[in-house]
Amino acid sequence: MDEREISQAVIARLPRYYRYLGDLKDEGVERVSSQELSELMQVTASQIRQDFNNFGGFGQQGYGYNVEYLYNEIAKILGLNEKHNLIIIGAGNLGRALANYMNFERRGFIVRGVFDNNPALYGRELRRNTVQPMEKMEQFVKEHNIDIAVLAIPKDEAGNVAERLVACGIKAIWNFAHVDLQVPGDIVVENVHLSDSLMKLSYGIAKRQRR
Amino acid sequence: MDEREISQAVIARLPRYYRYLGDLKDEGVERVSSQELSELMQVTASQIRQDFNNFGGFGQQGYGYNVEYLYNEIAKILGLNEKHNLIIIGAGNLGRALANYMNFERRGFIVRGVFDNNPALYGRELRRNTVQPMEKMEQFVKEHNIDIAVLAIPKDEAGNVAERLVACGIKAIWNFAHVDLQVPGDIVVENVHLSDSLMKLSYGIAKRQRR
Repeated sequence: MDEREISQAVIARLPRYYRYLGDLKDEGVERVSSQELSELMQVTASQIRQDFNNFGGFGQQGYGYNVEYLYNEIAKILGLNEKHNLIIIGAGNLGRALANYMNFERRGFIVRGVFDNNPALYGRELRRNTVQPMEKMEQFVKEHNIDIAVLAIPKDEAGNVAERLVACGIKAIWNFAHVDLQVPGDIVVENVHLSDSLMKLSYGIAKRQRR
Repeated sequence: MDEREISQAVIARLPRYYRYLGDLKDEGVERVSSQELSELMQVTASQIRQDFNNFGGFGQQGYGYNVEYLYNEIAKILGLNEKHNLIIIGAGNLGRALANYMNFERRGFIVRGVFDNNPALYGRELRRNTVQPMEKMEQFVKEHNIDIAVLAIPKDEAGNVAERLVACGIKAIWNFAHVDLQVPGDIVVENVHLSDSLMKLSYGIAKRQRR
């Protein structure tokens, strides 16, 4: 299937497959059927087969899928076989938390720099990085082959910073600012709107009470 | 429409409507048509009308919707007219960042306590709260009318802690642990799987490169 035609819903499910397959691999499981995966993940076996057929089916034969093969194939589709250099914009609470979070590095996402526009934070150490002034961002992106920028800044500043990032050649933005960014179509944007998520939670509670 | 029949996709779009309407309200805009909202939000006007019809349509008449009325109605549906007491489990990087993040309080989500199982962190101050030992969690939930627990702990511990939270009467879990929780159906769970989000970003970059 032409990759352009694969739906966002299928893509959004890949990390979850990857997570479950990683657990199975860690437990030493060698093969898994779509039925077993279905029970584990609480989705239908036919959905699993349909999802996998988007990528050629991953050669299920005889008894199910080879766990390690499937895990590695999904990793490749997700681009996890490549290392990514990222910078974090904003050294506030969230930016600092992300800069200190080790798990991303294990997956090949390496924090190369942290930037902020607050002089009081310049030079502050966050694991291997020190906070740098925003003026240095563009040059740093070019010199260090940065492909991902994490936006952990207020919504009012996000549009302007995103524009600057696009201009200096960034490929992808992981956006925690509570605003929808307007960027060219070839820039990959993934939003994490924590407030939206909290509102969905609040909706669930309200609905439960209205019953 | 019976609220049980409203799709998750519609619910997931409500916070975004709320965000745009809040911006319009702040700008002093009094009325907005579905067409204008459509251009602003880059979704079709017919989707907007369909979404709103799930909730009785919000009385569009003459020229569009009354912004403030619509904003307040969506707030009510989302349960944002009520205050929520929450606790944070895990005072690591992410837990601390969430405890220090002021914006949630503005929306009525008040952090009442922070818990961790690391004695080195006990007593540490995070804004108005100090980190308490996990053993005190159950009693605290009951005494302080806590309805939401935020799980900012490793995946291996999350299942056990979730069980304890359910047993002491929590209504909702905002889950940052990288695992799918198994909880009774009346417990509201909203997952924020940051690694999954980062993988989707990585997929976007890989796909761009495969073109």
